[in-house]
Amino acid sequence: MARMTQRRKVHRYLLDGSAAAVEYPVRLREDVLAAEEPLEIRFGSMSFAVTMRTPGDDFDLVAGFLVSEGIISYQSDLASLRFCSGEDELGRQTFNVVEAQFRPGLSLPDTGRHIYTSSSCGICGSTSIEAVRKTLTFGLEQDQLRVPVDVLARLPEQLREAQALFDKTGGVHAAGLFRITDGGEAELLCLREDVGRHNAVDKVIGWALREGRLPLRGTVLQVSGRASFELVQKAALAGIPVLAAVSAPSSLAADLAAETGMTLVGFSRGKSLNVYVGEERLAPPLNN
Amino acid sequence: MARMTQRRKVHRYLLDGSAAAVEYPVRLREDVLAAEEPLEIRFGSMSFAVTMRTPGDDFDLVAGFLVSEGIISYQSDLASLRFCSGEDELGRQTFNVVEAQFRPGLSLPDTGRHIYTSSSCGICGSTSIEAVRKTLTFGLEQDQLRVPVDVLARLPEQLREAQALFDKTGGVHAAGLFRITDGGEAELLCLREDVGRHNAVDKVIGWALREGRLPLRGTVLQVSGRASFELVQKAALAGIPVLAAVSAPSSLAADLAAETGMTLVGFSRGKSLNVYVGEERLAPPLNN
Repeated sequence: MARMTQRRKVHRYLLDGSAAAVEYPVRLREDVLAAEEPLEIRFGSMSFAVTMRTPGDDFDLVAGFLVSEGIISYQSDLASLRFCSGEDELGRQTFNVVEAQFRPGLSLPDTGRHIYTSSSCGICGSTSIEAVRKTLTFGLEQDQLRVPVDVLARLPEQLREAQALFDKTGGVHAAGLFRITDGGEAELLCLREDVGRHNAVDKVIGWALREGRLPLRGTVLQVSGRASFELVQKAALAGIPVLAAVSAPSSLAADLAAETGMTLVGFSRGKSLNVYVGEERLAPPLNN
Repeated sequence: MARMTQRRKVHRYLLDGSAAAVEYPVRLREDVLAAEEPLEIRFGSMSFAVTMRTPGDDFDLVAGFLVSEGIISYQSDLASLRFCSGEDELGRQTFNVVEAQFRPGLSLPDTGRHIYTSSSCGICGSTSIEAVRKTLTFGLEQDQLRVPVDVLARLPEQLREAQALFDKTGGVHAAGLFRITDGGEAELLCLREDVGRHNAVDKVIGWALREGRLPLRGTVLQVSGRASFELVQKAALAGIPVLAAVSAPSSLAADLAAETGMTLVGFSRGKSLNVYVGEERLAPPLNN
């Protein structure tokens, strides 16, 4: 956990209601920042992508990134993941390069293409608008999941209670994968945090792939921010039938959710939520 | 403005404090979503990048993206920008492809590299960790800007008051460029909104480039989200001496700000703010 945060000196300025300073000059104190470092993903010795991420759960991140890129769909597609030697200016091992090996015969994308992704970026490498949409391995339409509306609305709170890094830094996104039990309760399977919300989702999906759990039928993916096209696509590639966001979806996110048969929930805030697509998966409240 | 938002039918569920539904089934109402569409950037006829963005100010977005990629730094580097023909399935012009032409002799990156960036992604195309950091054209150290702390703390409110799209959709990020007058007041020069905060910043920087205003000395860039490495890099490439975020910075954002001589402000919330690097640019409150 140590590398996931860094302590920094910070000048904190306080102003009163009249916009004049209560105390000036300022208090110098220590603040905890979410760490952000580049991670290079290699196929064999070939560099495939560089992404900015919060260190930690790096194998999950790489595995999930490969699912989100449409490169792998099953645990057996991935032969191995390992850290390559990489040193900082002081000669310390940085653990910032991961090499992926695949099962023989897996069709890989053109590795002549090198990509850099920001901490918020997930699906990268398409060469044209047409190629942005990936082919889905798993269908969502047949997923018969039903989620009680009150259980769904409480997921952001459940996620927040389980979130460790945010409490310290206030600066990370979270993604939580919940299984809905036969009794309609939500059980947290996996929670991941990152400075980039796309990374947090990739880490969750990569965890599931490495556990042999794809496709993720009967689950809800709850994310801390808004729902973009990319997050819907990532969830669809992992076979997740319900994506719920605390904030707003974009128009293209709603389009893709409709196209893939996903339920898309936005503005999920404990006492209310909006369903943009796939309302048939909403069930009456459990505690009525 | 029409294409920046889309109206959708939404099922809104309301629950009371006991988590049981006040009204169930639900209200069907219309909601406004921020539009998100792919934009392809071409150099001549060669595809260079595809980015997800909120349509609108597309020339600004492309120009700013080119600055953020370290490809251009001056208005004169850019010969022309134009929409290419691109049609949707109904044969309508989509305005989703922009072609950039440069001044003769400008050194372009290897266009054999095609990149796709998400709506949150900005600097893309580096082939290794070493290449993530761009070479800066403009230095920041010599920028003598001083910003009164109360004026700085009020920028998020000023930005929010000027923000049109957020009020409708609740789902977009904003970036605002402020000039600090000799009297110490903040004057809004340019505000841009997008589903991706990196795009909002690129649109502001592109506006400035096309106006011949780079480097942006004596300005503050206020953003609605958190401060990542990429946002600091974009601001540095445009010569902006102060970057202020409403939320937390990452550790690498603080590192890069220190390295480039930038002032980095986080958790700017009206009545308080944190300065992580470059506190010498903070001046006592104007209204004391």
